[in-house]
Amino acid sequence: MLPEKSPEFQLIERFRQTVGARLDVPVGIGDDAAVVRRLPETGLLATDLLLEGVHFEIPPATPRQVGCKAMAVNLSDIAAMAGKPRFAVVSLALPQQRHDVAGSLADELFAGLNSTAERFGVTIVGGDTTSWNGPLVINVSIMGDVHPRGPVTRSGARPGDWVFVTGRLGGSLAGHHLTFEPRVEEARRLHESVDLHAMLDVSDGLVADIYHILEESGVGVILNSDHIPISQVASQCDDQRSPLQHALGDGEDFELLFTVSPEDGERLLLHSPVDVELSRIGTITRECRCLLSDPVRGGVELPRIGWVHAIG
Amino acid sequence: MLPEKSPEFQLIERFRQTVGARLDVPVGIGDDAAVVRRLPETGLLATDLLLEGVHFEIPPATPRQVGCKAMAVNLSDIAAMAGKPRFAVVSLALPQQRHDVAGSLADELFAGLNSTAERFGVTIVGGDTTSWNGPLVINVSIMGDVHPRGPVTRSGARPGDWVFVTGRLGGSLAGHHLTFEPRVEEARRLHESVDLHAMLDVSDGLVADIYHILEESGVGVILNSDHIPISQVASQCDDQRSPLQHALGDGEDFELLFTVSPEDGERLLLHSPVDVELSRIGTITRECRCLLSDPVRGGVELPRIGWVHAIG
Repeated sequence: MLPEKSPEFQLIERFRQTVGARLDVPVGIGDDAAVVRRLPETGLLATDLLLEGVHFEIPPATPRQVGCKAMAVNLSDIAAMAGKPRFAVVSLALPQQRHDVAGSLADELFAGLNSTAERFGVTIVGGDTTSWNGPLVINVSIMGDVHPRGPVTRSGARPGDWVFVTGRLGGSLAGHHLTFEPRVEEARRLHESVDLHAMLDVSDGLVADIYHILEESGVGVILNSDHIPISQVASQCDDQRSPLQHALGDGEDFELLFTVSPEDGERLLLHSPVDVELSRIGTITRECRCLLSDPVRGGVELPRIGWVHAIG
Repeated sequence: MLPEKSPEFQLIERFRQTVGARLDVPVGIGDDAAVVRRLPETGLLATDLLLEGVHFEIPPATPRQVGCKAMAVNLSDIAAMAGKPRFAVVSLALPQQRHDVAGSLADELFAGLNSTAERFGVTIVGGDTTSWNGPLVINVSIMGDVHPRGPVTRSGARPGDWVFVTGRLGGSLAGHHLTFEPRVEEARRLHESVDLHAMLDVSDGLVADIYHILEESGVGVILNSDHIPISQVASQCDDQRSPLQHALGDGEDFELLFTVSPEDGERLLLHSPVDVELSRIGTITRECRCLLSDPVRGGVELPRIGWVHAIG
């Protein structure tokens, strides 16, 4: 009999057993690289790094919630391309002390990662685990399949397009950033119903993210301040910033922001293919400016305000 | 005109220009996920997380060397499966202070990442960049193609197999861990010349890594102490450990460790398909033990000694 495995490899063994065997993963956790089956000729690849003290704190977040979030932000990236997420690899840097005291930290993290992955049909196929004398670090990289209709990028917005957003925005740091639903199914249904010209997920904040579409597409936008869907949390925020400012500037909503032709926009407003709320928040313009139309003040130029990467 | 991009997105723009446009990357750096063209039905996926203070220190390492290493350890994972590396995504957590003082840290890192990638035919297709109040963290995830002959896993070693290793082992921390050559071409040539039963790259240390093959294959091994190829640096190490101990226990050599039938082993010794040194270091046994045969003391049981993740 070979001697017992080291704690690190016992941990990996538990991860492997949690995931189990899958037909489309000939070689999964435990080898140098995973071997996966994939069909369409084009694939998607995305990655997100979550840092303790920047993207989460434990507490108030639980390790399981952090695991869920680390997987969900990647799922949201694949959703933003209207793709189908398939396989993920996970890198963990575990804080030595807490890892020793509560051996459950890594297991709880992994439970969160894996339950979220499974709920979206994703298999964790490998990773890298290290203990260190630093904060918790989690990186997830995800491989997905391109939709048969092709991917939806940030670069296809055209003057005259209507701009839509799913759900409601703002105040995510109060908790929603840990519990949001990646809009994977919604993105695919929208892609199958209308011709999506450009799309992304709102991670840095509505204005900061719409700038990505403007830059990649070489266009501008007029947003209608009356039509920005403000979350209940943001509308109750008790600080110097207005609910609208929260909705425009807060990040980590992970809602879909997309543009379509006016005809497709009308169609969406008449018969929405998704259960989540859809709001028409503005119009793409030829002039490369980012404006907020205000019933009182007219058009106001919006600076690049985004979510500042700091909590508390 | 849209206002100027933030420093973070200017950085990403520079990364994008460094990489340039590629035919097999319809959508690269700068969208939510990359879109890549891939052909075989099975693919490889691997990830590695490098932490400042654990896997490197700056100085003595330069940022460019750290970038090279971060890419090379992933290339080595794909080599260990005899695959062809294709696309990579890079996550960076940049230390706020040093990032501000020397804006070149990120650029130098990326130059190292990209030059190593290009040298091995890999394209960096996306990533995630954050500044934080912590040490430098780099995660690279890599997608590769499986060799037409299939992947080489850790689980195929059989009793009677000869165990081989490329190059020389030990003393990597003196510098070689930053400058090693991933054995991508060597692995493919070996795979095309003989029937590789099991293979991995030596990252944790020869003995620690051979245990992975033993466990996955359900076998044991007798290593021949006279035949372990000791690096020049290890043979000159001036500490309490012998050169052999360094070769057995030090990590980060990133050489290939593999097993083949005795017939294929003979063939390799007669006509090596690779330029790098090949050493037959032992034999796989039915009995699940890890032994070191010693001309003086006979067989000694080897514990799971591995490279301790600490520098200096």
